[in-house]
Amino acid sequence: MNKRLTFHLIGNVVRLAGALMLLPLLVSLIYGGEDAIPLLISMAITVAAGSALALIRPQRESLRAREGFAVVAFSWILVSFCGGLPFYFSGYIPSLVDCFFETVSGFTTTGATIIPNVELLPRGLLFWRSFTHWAGGMGVLVLSLALIPKMGARSIHLMRAESPGPSTDKLVPRVANNAKILYAIYGGLSVVMVFALLLCGMDWFDALVHMFGAAGTGGFGTYANSIAHFNSAAVDIVIGVFMALFGVNFSLYYFILRRNWKAALGNSEMRLYWAIMLISSVLIAINIMPLKDVGFCAMSDGPAQAGNFLTALRYSFFQVSSVMTTTGYATADFNLWPQFSRCLLVVIMFIGASAGSTGGGIKVIRIQLLFKSMLRDIRRTVHPKSVNTIKLDGHTVDENILSGVQGFFFAYMFVLFASTIIVSRDGFSFETNFTAVVATLSNIGPGLGMVGPAGNFAAFSDVSKLVLSLCMLIGRLEVFPILMLVAPSAWRQ
Amino acid sequence: MNKRLTFHLIGNVVRLAGALMLLPLLVSLIYGGEDAIPLLISMAITVAAGSALALIRPQRESLRAREGFAVVAFSWILVSFCGGLPFYFSGYIPSLVDCFFETVSGFTTTGATIIPNVELLPRGLLFWRSFTHWAGGMGVLVLSLALIPKMGARSIHLMRAESPGPSTDKLVPRVANNAKILYAIYGGLSVVMVFALLLCGMDWFDALVHMFGAAGTGGFGTYANSIAHFNSAAVDIVIGVFMALFGVNFSLYYFILRRNWKAALGNSEMRLYWAIMLISSVLIAINIMPLKDVGFCAMSDGPAQAGNFLTALRYSFFQVSSVMTTTGYATADFNLWPQFSRCLLVVIMFIGASAGSTGGGIKVIRIQLLFKSMLRDIRRTVHPKSVNTIKLDGHTVDENILSGVQGFFFAYMFVLFASTIIVSRDGFSFETNFTAVVATLSNIGPGLGMVGPAGNFAAFSDVSKLVLSLCMLIGRLEVFPILMLVAPSAWRQ
Repeated sequence: MNKRLTFHLIGNVVRLAGALMLLPLLVSLIYGGEDAIPLLISMAITVAAGSALALIRPQRESLRAREGFAVVAFSWILVSFCGGLPFYFSGYIPSLVDCFFETVSGFTTTGATIIPNVELLPRGLLFWRSFTHWAGGMGVLVLSLALIPKMGARSIHLMRAESPGPSTDKLVPRVANNAKILYAIYGGLSVVMVFALLLCGMDWFDALVHMFGAAGTGGFGTYANSIAHFNSAAVDIVIGVFMALFGVNFSLYYFILRRNWKAALGNSEMRLYWAIMLISSVLIAINIMPLKDVGFCAMSDGPAQAGNFLTALRYSFFQVSSVMTTTGYATADFNLWPQFSRCLLVVIMFIGASAGSTGGGIKVIRIQLLFKSMLRDIRRTVHPKSVNTIKLDGHTVDENILSGVQGFFFAYMFVLFASTIIVSRDGFSFETNFTAVVATLSNIGPGLGMVGPAGNFAAFSDVSKLVLSLCMLIGRLEVFPILMLVAPSAWRQ
Repeated sequence: MNKRLTFHLIGNVVRLAGALMLLPLLVSLIYGGEDAIPLLISMAITVAAGSALALIRPQRESLRAREGFAVVAFSWILVSFCGGLPFYFSGYIPSLVDCFFETVSGFTTTGATIIPNVELLPRGLLFWRSFTHWAGGMGVLVLSLALIPKMGARSIHLMRAESPGPSTDKLVPRVANNAKILYAIYGGLSVVMVFALLLCGMDWFDALVHMFGAAGTGGFGTYANSIAHFNSAAVDIVIGVFMALFGVNFSLYYFILRRNWKAALGNSEMRLYWAIMLISSVLIAINIMPLKDVGFCAMSDGPAQAGNFLTALRYSFFQVSSVMTTTGYATADFNLWPQFSRCLLVVIMFIGASAGSTGGGIKVIRIQLLFKSMLRDIRRTVHPKSVNTIKLDGHTVDENILSGVQGFFFAYMFVLFASTIIVSRDGFSFETNFTAVVATLSNIGPGLGMVGPAGNFAAFSDVSKLVLSLCMLIGRLEVFPILMLVAPSAWRQ
C-alpha cells in the first residue's frame, strides 16, 4: 500500500468536501443565518483536516487498484464524519454516531434518517443534508476527478471503484472527459428537474432540495410526510418520472445526445428496468385499489380516493420508482399496504437501479446476468455436455465477469445476513431488522416495520447504527472496496 | 426425452412405494386396525398405478441425464400424491391438496405440517407419516436402486439427482455397491438410535417413529409438543446428538469403518459443520439464559429452570442441531426466543447440513466454497492480476464446480424470493411468509411467526400450499432437476 499517496488523495477529497459547505453557508445566511456559525466551524475544520492530509507528499506517484479502492473507501468515511459536524455543532443531532449515520446516509444517497421531525431543522442544515445526496450521487470523487484533470491516468482505478455496475462502459477514451460528460448529463437533468418542480408550484428552496434527493437517488426531504406533503399529482408525477430517469444508465443519455438511437433504445438492461418498474406498478396498483384511504395514504394530508385504478397507479408507480431507483421518497406509507405489495417492494429493493446510474442495489444488469446464468445451468442439466456462452446485447459475456457477478451476489447476501444478525441484538422485529439492512445496503432509506416511510432509524443502538452505516458504504461502493480494507494482503508492502 | 423409459422407471418407483404401505398396515392391525381399510385401499391404488406405468416397455434402454432427473422429479411428485391417499380415505385430512402437502413434506424430509392436532391420528397413519421421512431420507430411489441391481450403469444419473451436495464422492466404483454401503450405514445408525431411545424409556412405537424423523432429518412426531412432550434431558440429548450425526456426510462413516481416520476427521466440511453448530449453540444459550420459563419453553410441560447456562445449552443445542440438520423437532418454542436467537436460527436454516447426508439446505460445503470464492474476489480487488485457485481438503476445486455452486446459490435465492411473493398474497406477515419458504426450501419444517414450532401451515391457501410443496421438492432435489421440468429443451426429441 502506497500510504503517502493514499493520504494525499484523501486529503484532497476532504478539502473539496469542506469547500462544498460554502453552499449551505450561503443558504443559511439568506434565511437568517441561525445555523451559519456551526456550518462555518465545520467548514474550517474540514478544510484544515483535508489540507493537512493533502500536505503529505507521495514519494511515488503510482496508483494501483488497492490504493484506488482505499482512497475511495476512506474518503467516503472521512467526508461523512466531517460532513456530520454541522449537525453536531448546531446541537440538532447531539450524538456523533447519529451525525455520522445521517451524513453517510446522505453521501451514499441512501436517505435513511435518525431525525424524527425534520421540519425543525434550519434551512442551511436542510440544504446541506440534501446536497450531500447530490454530491454523493455521482460520487465526490467523480466530482474531484472532473475538477482535477491533472490526475490523469491514475484515476482509472478511482472510476472503477466509483461507477456502479459490473463494468464501466467506456464512452470516450480519456477518464477525465468521461467524468465531464457524465457530470454534464447529471447537471443538465438536474436543471430541467428544478424547473419542472418550479412549474408545479414549489418554491426555489424545495425545488432544489427535492431535486438533490431525486438526482442522487437519495430521498432526504424537508417534510416529515416526504412528498405526500405537497399533496399534488403533478409533483408526484414529476418526481416519480425523474427518479426513474436518474436510475437509467447515464451512458444511454450520451448515446441519445449523439443520436445513436439503436444503442440507446436497444439496451436490454434499460428495457428490463422499465419492464420491472411498469409491471410491478400495475400489480401493486391492483393490489392496493380496494384499500380504504386510511391505510392507503396515512402520510398524505387528505384521503385519496379508493377504488380508482388511476389513483392507485399514481401511488404505486411513485413508490415503485422510488424504491427501485433506491431513492426512498414516499407519497404513501407503504408499510401499511397489503403483504403482497410490501413483499414485492422488498424484492425490488434487492434488484435496484441500472448500472451506471446514481441508484444502488444489486443492479438490473447483474440480475439479468444471474438469470441468464441460471437458465444456462438448467440447460446444462438437460444437456450435460453442451457448451453455451451467455450473450448480452449481442456481445458474449466474459466468464470472468459472470463469475464476478455471482461472487458479488453471494457477498451481498453474506453482508445482508451477517448484518441482520448483529442488528437483531437490539430486539426489534425480524421484518424491521431484515429490511433495515436491505434498505441501507441497497441505499434506499426506508424499509418496513419500524423503519417504514413513517418511521426512522433513531431507536437502533450505536452498534447497529455503525453496522448500518457500514452497510450503506458497502452498498454504495459495490461491496469489495470496503471488504478489501479488512484483508491483510491489502496492507502488505 | 425417452418418455417410455421414463414412465417405466417411475412406475417401478411408485409400485415400490405402494409395497411400503404394508408396514403401516401391519402397525394399524397391531393397534386395532382403525385405519387399516384406508391404508389397504391406498396401497391397492398405488401398486396398481405403479404396475400400469411399469408395463410401458422402453424401446431404448439409454438413460441420459434428462431422463434421470425427470424420473426423480416425477417419482417424487407421484409417490407423494399416492402416499397422501391414506390420510384422504381415512377422512383425517379432508383436502387432497393438504394430503399432498403433508406427504411431500414427509418424503422430502421437511416435516412441515397442516395437522393442528397430530395426537388425534390413529397409529397406522402416524407410522406411515413418519416412515415417509425414513424412506425419503436416503431417497425412495436409492432404496429402489439398491433393490434392483440390474439397473446397473444407468443409475449413475439417478444418483446424481438424488444425493445432496455438489459432487458425489465415489466410495467404491459400482453405484449399486455405493447405494448398499450408504444404506447399511443409514440402517445401522437407525438401529442404534432406536435402542438408545428405548433406553431413555420410550415405547417401541415412539422410538421407531422418532428415529424415522431424526434419521431422515424430517421432524414429524406423534405429539403436538414435539420432543418437549417427553420432558426428559436424556431424550433431548439422544435425539439432539443423533440428528447432528445424520447431518454428517455418510462417506465419513464409511471412512471410519475402514479406519481411515485421516480422511474422516480431517474433512473440512465436517469440522465447519460442528464449529457452526457448537458456536451457535453457545451464542443462543447465552442469549436465552436470562429468559423466564414462560417464553423459554412454552411447549414443554414444566417450566425450565431459567438463568442456568447448562439448561439453556440443552435447549439451544437441541434447537440448533434440529434446525441445522433441517429436521425441525422442537423442545422449546423458539419463535418466542429473543430476536438475536431467532435471526441466528433463520441464517442456520439457510446453511443446512453437510453434503451426502440426509439433511437439506444450501449445505455447509457450498457455503464453504462460496466463502472461499468471496475471499478470492477480495484478494483480486487488491491484486487484480493475481491468479488464485481455491483449495478444499488439499485438492484444487474445479472452476466449473465453483461456478455451479454460485449458480445454485442464486437459483436458491431466486426460488426463495419468487415463492415469498406468491405466498404473501395470503396476507400473513413478512416474517411468516419468508420463513415458511425458507423452512420448506431447506426442508426444515417449522419457521417463525405463524409457522413457528407451535404453529402449522394449515391457514395458507391451496395455491400457497402447492407453491410450498414445490419448494420442498426443489430444495430436496437441489433445485435444478425440478426447474429443468419447465425447460422446453428437456422435452424435445
